[in-house]
Amino acid sequence: MTQLNIPFELIELDITQKETRTPEFLNKNPNGRIPLLELESGQFLWESNAILFYLSENTPFFPTEHFERAKVLQWLFFEQYSHEPYIATTRYYYHIGKADEYRETINQKREPGYAALRVMEKHLSDRAFFVGERYSIADIGLFAYTHVAEEGEFDLTKFPAIQAWIERIKQQPGYIPITARNL
Amino acid sequence: MTQLNIPFELIELDITQKETRTPEFLNKNPNGRIPLLELESGQFLWESNAILFYLSENTPFFPTEHFERAKVLQWLFFEQYSHEPYIATTRYYYHIGKADEYRETINQKREPGYAALRVMEKHLSDRAFFVGERYSIADIGLFAYTHVAEEGEFDLTKFPAIQAWIERIKQQPGYIPITARNL
Repeated sequence: MTQLNIPFELIELDITQKETRTPEFLNKNPNGRIPLLELESGQFLWESNAILFYLSENTPFFPTEHFERAKVLQWLFFEQYSHEPYIATTRYYYHIGKADEYRETINQKREPGYAALRVMEKHLSDRAFFVGERYSIADIGLFAYTHVAEEGEFDLTKFPAIQAWIERIKQQPGYIPITARNL
Repeated sequence: MTQLNIPFELIELDITQKETRTPEFLNKNPNGRIPLLELESGQFLWESNAILFYLSENTPFFPTEHFERAKVLQWLFFEQYSHEPYIATTRYYYHIGKADEYRETINQKREPGYAALRVMEKHLSDRAFFVGERYSIADIGLFAYTHVAEEGEFDLTKFPAIQAWIERIKQQPGYIPITARNL
């Protein structure tokens, strides 16, 4: 939103306090999850990558060519199915101070998390960005939890192409750190 | 593809025999998963819902209105994150005859699977289809594992709106059963 100069207000909710499971919130997103986008019209959109699509369609951050459009979504579905459940959730256990309590779960998530990073590393070995050699929401969606994977003790030093890509993303005009204050 | 009259050849792979992890297959999808779409151009697209998007964009099965387009994707991301990991994988354990072996995992997946069905039931309680009151790939994507959820011992009799929607989908012109022969 910063890169598109879209004004917004950020409201943080604490999932450890079940703030996304209140009747009021469930009226906005019946699935009880964040992020949630509220439009000026009062309409609500949930699922982070659907929000990225909504905000970026018809901008330089989403391709115009038919196959490239699908390829951006391919990487975003990869992010939700093969990346986030391992890399983001592992980091979450560390952040809430429960890495020891969830050690067995973390250990189970380690190999599939590295598998996702290997898929990314291979793809980026001869590319600057994920799709069409230009920065898109495929990069934004994958950057989110990848650039903080080490906070969940994933070792990114084994992935030089990913590391170079992370630095490339941080150099994009209008880039701001996206890690929320409390997580 | 049948509903759009797109000719195709269906090639089935056996994941229990690791047929999606061969070097040949990994050259086509480095993430080693099916489905995989090969175009006449020789290009490959993976992730089931990205394939649905590619095939349906600019057809009646994907909306033209900006917000509705994002809403279709919202439901498809919901399907991949909150539905498939519980409902499809549970059915898979039954299908490969390992429900007893995976009983603890199945038990853990039961409540989140029902949670996804409750979100669907509530949404369908006053709607015929998921988005914009017309049949779209949001319906197709969610129909896939929902209409066979009972094969994983999810009880759909508790969900009358879902049951009516399943019958509605089966009445769509060009509908064919989509359950693969071996699964």
